[in-house]
Amino acid sequence: MAKDPKTDSTRAGGSTKLWGGRFSGATDPTVERFSASVHFDKALARYDIRGSIAHAQMLGKTELIPGDDVEALVSGLKAIEADIEAGTFPFDPALEDIHMNIESRLREQIGPVAGRLHTGRSRNDQVATDTALYLRETCWAAQMSLLSFRQTLVARASEHIDTILPGYTHLQRAQPVRLAHHWLAYAEMLERDSERFADLGRRIRRCPLGAGAIAGSTLPLDRHHTAKALGFEEPTRNSMDTVASRDLTLEFLSATAICMVNLSRIAEELVIWSSTEFNFVTLADAYSTGSSLMPQKKNPDVPELVRGKSGRAIGNLVSLLTTMKGLPLAYNRDMQEDKEPLFDSALTLRDSIDVLNGSISTLQVCEAAMAAAAQDPMLLATDLAEILVVENVPFREAHEVVGKMVGQCARDGVTLDSFSLDEMQAFHPAFSAPASELLNLERSFERRNLVGGTSREQVSRAVEIATQDLHTQAIELEAAGQQVEGTQ
Amino acid sequence: MAKDPKTDSTRAGGSTKLWGGRFSGATDPTVERFSASVHFDKALARYDIRGSIAHAQMLGKTELIPGDDVEALVSGLKAIEADIEAGTFPFDPALEDIHMNIESRLREQIGPVAGRLHTGRSRNDQVATDTALYLRETCWAAQMSLLSFRQTLVARASEHIDTILPGYTHLQRAQPVRLAHHWLAYAEMLERDSERFADLGRRIRRCPLGAGAIAGSTLPLDRHHTAKALGFEEPTRNSMDTVASRDLTLEFLSATAICMVNLSRIAEELVIWSSTEFNFVTLADAYSTGSSLMPQKKNPDVPELVRGKSGRAIGNLVSLLTTMKGLPLAYNRDMQEDKEPLFDSALTLRDSIDVLNGSISTLQVCEAAMAAAAQDPMLLATDLAEILVVENVPFREAHEVVGKMVGQCARDGVTLDSFSLDEMQAFHPAFSAPASELLNLERSFERRNLVGGTSREQVSRAVEIATQDLHTQAIELEAAGQQVEGTQ
Amino acid sequence: MAKDPKTDSTRAGGSTKLWGGRFSGATDPTVERFSASVHFDKALARYDIRGSIAHAQMLGKTELIPGDDVEALVSGLKAIEADIEAGTFPFDPALEDIHMNIESRLREQIGPVAGRLHTGRSRNDQVATDTALYLRETCWAAQMSLLSFRQTLVARASEHIDTILPGYTHLQRAQPVRLAHHWLAYAEMLERDSERFADLGRRIRRCPLGAGAIAGSTLPLDRHHTAKALGFEEPTRNSMDTVASRDLTLEFLSATAICMVNLSRIAEELVIWSSTEFNFVTLADAYSTGSSLMPQKKNPDVPELVRGKSGRAIGNLVSLLTTMKGLPLAYNRDMQEDKEPLFDSALTLRDSIDVLNGSISTLQVCEAAMAAAAQDPMLLATDLAEILVVENVPFREAHEVVGKMVGQCARDGVTLDSFSLDEMQAFHPAFSAPASELLNLERSFERRNLVGGTSREQVSRAVEIATQDLHTQAIELEAAGQQVEGTQ
Amino acid sequence: MAKDPKTDSTRAGGSTKLWGGRFSGATDPTVERFSASVHFDKALARYDIRGSIAHAQMLGKTELIPGDDVEALVSGLKAIEADIEAGTFPFDPALEDIHMNIESRLREQIGPVAGRLHTGRSRNDQVATDTALYLRETCWAAQMSLLSFRQTLVARASEHIDTILPGYTHLQRAQPVRLAHHWLAYAEMLERDSERFADLGRRIRRCPLGAGAIAGSTLPLDRHHTAKALGFEEPTRNSMDTVASRDLTLEFLSATAICMVNLSRIAEELVIWSSTEFNFVTLADAYSTGSSLMPQKKNPDVPELVRGKSGRAIGNLVSLLTTMKGLPLAYNRDMQEDKEPLFDSALTLRDSIDVLNGSISTLQVCEAAMAAAAQDPMLLATDLAEILVVENVPFREAHEVVGKMVGQCARDGVTLDSFSLDEMQAFHPAFSAPASELLNLERSFERRNLVGGTSREQVSRAVEIATQDLHTQAIELEAAGQQVEGTQ
Repeated sequence: MAKDPKTDSTRAGGSTKLWGGRFSGATDPTVERFSASVHFDKALARYDIRGSIAHAQMLGKTELIPGDDVEALVSGLKAIEADIEAGTFPFDPALEDIHMNIESRLREQIGPVAGRLHTGRSRNDQVATDTALYLRETCWAAQMSLLSFRQTLVARASEHIDTILPGYTHLQRAQPVRLAHHWLAYAEMLERDSERFADLGRRIRRCPLGAGAIAGSTLPLDRHHTAKALGFEEPTRNSMDTVASRDLTLEFLSATAICMVNLSRIAEELVIWSSTEFNFVTLADAYSTGSSLMPQKKNPDVPELVRGKSGRAIGNLVSLLTTMKGLPLAYNRDMQEDKEPLFDSALTLRDSIDVLNGSISTLQVCEAAMAAAAQDPMLLATDLAEILVVENVPFREAHEVVGKMVGQCARDGVTLDSFSLDEMQAFHPAFSAPASELLNLERSFERRNLVGGTSREQVSRAVEIATQDLHTQAIELEAAGQQVEGTQ
Repeated sequence: MAKDPKTDSTRAGGSTKLWGGRFSGATDPTVERFSASVHFDKALARYDIRGSIAHAQMLGKTELIPGDDVEALVSGLKAIEADIEAGTFPFDPALEDIHMNIESRLREQIGPVAGRLHTGRSRNDQVATDTALYLRETCWAAQMSLLSFRQTLVARASEHIDTILPGYTHLQRAQPVRLAHHWLAYAEMLERDSERFADLGRRIRRCPLGAGAIAGSTLPLDRHHTAKALGFEEPTRNSMDTVASRDLTLEFLSATAICMVNLSRIAEELVIWSSTEFNFVTLADAYSTGSSLMPQKKNPDVPELVRGKSGRAIGNLVSLLTTMKGLPLAYNRDMQEDKEPLFDSALTLRDSIDVLNGSISTLQVCEAAMAAAAQDPMLLATDLAEILVVENVPFREAHEVVGKMVGQCARDGVTLDSFSLDEMQAFHPAFSAPASELLNLERSFERRNLVGGTSREQVSRAVEIATQDLHTQAIELEAAGQQVEGTQ
Repeated sequence: MAKDPKTDSTRAGGSTKLWGGRFSGATDPTVERFSASVHFDKALARYDIRGSIAHAQMLGKTELIPGDDVEALVSGLKAIEADIEAGTFPFDPALEDIHMNIESRLREQIGPVAGRLHTGRSRNDQVATDTALYLRETCWAAQMSLLSFRQTLVARASEHIDTILPGYTHLQRAQPVRLAHHWLAYAEMLERDSERFADLGRRIRRCPLGAGAIAGSTLPLDRHHTAKALGFEEPTRNSMDTVASRDLTLEFLSATAICMVNLSRIAEELVIWSSTEFNFVTLADAYSTGSSLMPQKKNPDVPELVRGKSGRAIGNLVSLLTTMKGLPLAYNRDMQEDKEPLFDSALTLRDSIDVLNGSISTLQVCEAAMAAAAQDPMLLATDLAEILVVENVPFREAHEVVGKMVGQCARDGVTLDSFSLDEMQAFHPAFSAPASELLNLERSFERRNLVGGTSREQVSRAVEIATQDLHTQAIELEAAGQQVEGTQ
Repeated sequence: MAKDPKTDSTRAGGSTKLWGGRFSGATDPTVERFSASVHFDKALARYDIRGSIAHAQMLGKTELIPGDDVEALVSGLKAIEADIEAGTFPFDPALEDIHMNIESRLREQIGPVAGRLHTGRSRNDQVATDTALYLRETCWAAQMSLLSFRQTLVARASEHIDTILPGYTHLQRAQPVRLAHHWLAYAEMLERDSERFADLGRRIRRCPLGAGAIAGSTLPLDRHHTAKALGFEEPTRNSMDTVASRDLTLEFLSATAICMVNLSRIAEELVIWSSTEFNFVTLADAYSTGSSLMPQKKNPDVPELVRGKSGRAIGNLVSLLTTMKGLPLAYNRDMQEDKEPLFDSALTLRDSIDVLNGSISTLQVCEAAMAAAAQDPMLLATDLAEILVVENVPFREAHEVVGKMVGQCARDGVTLDSFSLDEMQAFHPAFSAPASELLNLERSFERRNLVGGTSREQVSRAVEIATQDLHTQAIELEAAGQQVEGTQ
């Protein structure tokens, strides 16, 4: 087959460029590699094709290109999509980016009519559209992953309503709590994370396509048509803002970084709880690894990696914030740097949620060790003070009285429950029983019967409410998913 | 007056501590300074007092303390608030934090009854409540500042519908735009910023008070009562999550960092536009400064500082993300480090918006310089290509044809509008007029008549819509503000 | 006294400006506050005065100003320095920065001759000089603080050569180590931190003074004279680089962030070791705090704060990296943002080192708890494998054999030392003794007799070497300090 | 060939694990992918093999394994290295990391003797050694790249001693400078960057090999032998520090981030200078790209990408700082996250330096545009003030006088050189000639004859010194390179 001379003449630097016309010198090879993006932006392939199909159909509807050409474009694009999904698409770094890889392949397959696809479109609005579609779907997927993890947590909570362990502040034993309460604390944190992705998803409601390179187009495009076809509410309102902004990506990276920090905290607890000294949980073999040197080791690698990868998520956020800082409007090439952090954070988030979800759903709780730790009478010191408060002693005075009792315990090497009634009254006359009677774990829980507190009643209700909420959210998310994916 | 021996005995390390009972050694003086927070957390004073009043009233309502004591507490707290507002309150770093400064002062004023205020409350839920109140109000204030700035931008847009300048990509002239369109691009960016603060404001809907140190309280508090009194929807749902989480603060720092990056971009443009070479705008003297050495200098310091302070906002975000990373539940002292970044980012944001608002509302536009730049015929090269598209030439081919015309201009030192009809047709036979006829700035604008585009009609409508939207939002925000501030 | 009309006429915006000549409008009050720096850059006061004295003397020597004026300037500056040190200097935010505060005060004290001080100098090279002096001294101080901490660690190591505890990887018990070895690991980390500050100190060897605002000066200054007077090797080599660069400050912020991360790791271990579950150490009361609610709590607040403040140090670094990113040469006002992160990181570093030093020098080691944990026979599993290696079994095979023994222990609930000779040989025929004989803690240590290893001999030698190194470095640093401080 | 049953039995989760012995459950597939590192740590292959060869030879020398086995190991490792370099090595993600890929392949090739290679070694000290070798070589390579760029800058400086342009502060024209002076400013910045890499290279002087997993080894290894063989001064001094620390990698990431920020500033200037408004330089076609939509565009993509990638370098630094924050000693799996930021920053740095080097060596300077801008008489305003200083007017008074002259120019729309002698004397009687005589660009330069200043003499000397310095450094670096690469 004879080469198309037109195509040839656009070669700058050994590869087909979209913009070779005005150039005479070839691109430096290091620059080609330095500026290429196809090795990462191929993650956008399906969104790019979805956007191109919508664009082609709009061009047909507005009669900017003939119906036959639309059909050729659409079927060609669908064939390419199939190749990509089958892993047989020949990505070529010399073609710079995913958009040119697809368009170039299209020309190979359907000939010069492929050149009509870019009518009224710039890579600037094209990539903004791809990214919006990617972000919208990824926000939804993050909510789905979080939903599944929250379901695990609530399910485990329902198993552990009567499993008691010390709650810690400063990693010091503070007050006894139910393990269910602890699992639900994680679930609360993750619900806010999920809300953040939902808020962002709602904000991605306007379609960039038709904004052109910076100033729209002189052609009579129908921006509402493509917006609707791609599942958006309406077109974006300002062409310069459309191609110049990356704040929605930044918001995704922020929400991910915050969520990863939350996950790192859960991970830290699993690591601490897996230590021989705490011995509160045993991770399943499927979520642990060993040592190449020390045969006895069973390491909590999965939570460690999750904890470590929070650094990556924060780094990705900083990377793009810094890149965008101080850039004038509108598009600048620096902005190509938005993709890798985005894809990396999205993948890191999904995997981190999934493996932590798996770790917690399969771990074995060592209830005996938790219970033993929770027996520490010191955990009830606050209760003693609050008993005095009920006897009308100002809290500050009550606190100090009990503080002195604790101090004496430390000096004498005894425990708080050893004080007799006489000894108690020597500390404060309002005490009316020996410590062993006043310090009762069961009663202590039952008294903490406030919303959000640790009594059996409150925790059971919290499990019920969470179960119900998750059920509702699952239905809503499922429905939203059909919309996100079914748009074309 | 004789010293209260009880108070004295609680002194550890030379100052009155809330927790001295069990301690025998004094605190190291460097540690006192290292761990003190009153020099920054005094920014929470009014929120702390508001929360304490609500708490005291609830203690009265639930009969945990007598009505007389409630009255004493409330009037004492109000007196302290007055002192703080008058600047006469004696902050004492030795008293660690703002909470203890207030409580200690209260004891001086109303005696031992002050000790009842901390009944059923820990510093952990207290500071979480203060922060929630602070954040909620600051989110509202950020929206107000952004509203005012957006009003300025839309007002200036309405002045500059017919001011033409080049739109730039890669800081190269790309296509002509209306200055109104440029101002509106900023307004669009800032609207999304405002939405982020609104979303966060809605998320701060649950009241921490009553979560105690970690596990609620054994006392029969009424958490719904304080929640309502402080303007929240309901109490938080899990005591451990309540005292352990800082993700709402992180979300504020994120939204601020993203907004500051947007501001840094506006600032960068003002700096570039103020250069002698561009000469597009002249900043008012009130928003410029001079040089101590060079008498001729008039420097755009205000936008430079805004641009520079984006680094500070990003640093504050990183600071807290890193601090929170890997912390086990529940409260850890590390979390005290949340305050300074929060206060600093809040202040930086407010001032940056205000001074940039002032800069743009007072700057003088050099319309002649903008117009001269916009006359560059190169700006209409895309139009030439799109003219060929209308003649049914595939866009890629059209792009290449015009690319060659541009290349020849560069080589011959002529401008694009110099080509005669013959010359044009030598490039492509579909051209039907000399370049000078085809390249018409006015017509070019009128053809860009898409939503979000640059035609006079579209831009005028965009100004109208934005004006209307801002009007509506101003009314809504005003109403929300009364709720945020009027809660007690 | 009549007001000097000249001074008055330089007022812009209500305050005396250095650059008012060409301005007619007043500065906006928010802008005044926004751009003021004296509230933080007063930390530079003594360096500013030192630099001004050197500059004045050079102006005298080169006869740019008369000797009498030099004397007036120098004695005026010294009087101001005394006021500042006494805390009686009236800092005025309206005077923008520390330089203007000092110069303005000088004028009040010695009259118009004060106006000669700025001859041949710009605020740009002035502030660069102040910062260089500050940085040089702070690098030295950081090395001094680290030296003291390392001395503590080595001293504690010499006490704990025979204190045995488990070494952990993945927070799982790995192999037994001497506590001395653990303290020395910290000392090694901190030695590299110290080296980084030393390297930076050496890099600050050229004096900025004389670089002017951007292009030097038309006056015949003697830059070598001021460089020498201020203790530098020579003047900087390029005036634009001199006023435009902040990389030395960035390097300080980096070295500090890395050091703070190292400290955060030591802090984390102290927190974990202070838990009831580990119970390896008890912090002194002077380095602990209590709870306002829970009377029994003794919290490791000091290490927690150090750990948390690593976030602040990282944030400060990010802040300035971001601020400097993308700034064209030479000076831009954004660069004023370098001061606060610098001062904050310097102070945070000093205090963090000091309080951690104090915590470790005063903590009580619970040797019994450490020893009990180190008795875990699992810690010697690697030894068992290495015993097989000595019998010519390939390590991978040996590792697997012992892995199976460990697996069987887990299943049967027995410990590794329970296997009889027969059982051992069933695992591998090369075993020649029952496990209880092969697993010997003492022998295990003695066999680890490699450089850097844990045998008594190696650890004792490491303590000796470290002691000797610190002694030498103390002498060198002392000498360097006299040079750093004694320059004038 | 029959399968080795021992190997098979170590399979956990479907792949051969180094540590399967004690495990019964299989690894979760997502976890396998989540924890795998071979897709990135294969960058360490050649260093891993180099380290393994040195280790095998030491094992032979100390008679821990027989000489024949050493030969088999070494020749097997060399064959693998050849495969890797030829691109024919079959990397298998299921084998977790590069170390296991190599060891597993070795077993396929030389049989069970491969199992002896890991004698006395853990992956912890192995990967620390690989990283040290990688870092040392990369520091050297960074210095080489910077040397080449500095040579370009100095070469261009020697061409542009008489090319005059305005020096800018705040992007406002400040004072005229020679373009050579501007190029040399960049060279100075980059020299400090180079010093940082040199300092770090020197710090990597101790060999990790032999530190084992945490506590050295019970086998009689010769750590000095491997240290020397790999080109280190000596073994590391503390086994725990050796496997637990990542500060040298952090230091590399810091030095890279700082250097990238410096490069971003050079890049920003190239972008600004390439604008039509400045028109100071024209980038070669080889270092520019076009637009897919706008045929006329020639964009400075290369400097834009360099500027943008500074974000990536800062993100990588933050990522690892955050990951390391708060990790207890010794090794934790989180630390695997050190590799990707390291490799990415190293590659980003190298490419950024190279393409910027290429951009500057090939760009065309538009001397006429620079000269025209430098003619602006305002640039000499400081000279006017300094002329008064020489006439004994205090500088502050002189500054104000000239400020008023500038103000009048602005009001009257005239230039500073238009004032007659009379007008001049009206401003200040000390003026002795009309402005046009006093304001002389040539004389202005000649008067700036200070070290680091802009006179022809000074700049010429600076070029000479820089040339000489670079010559010396090139020889030194060449020699150092032979040492870095020739070690085995």
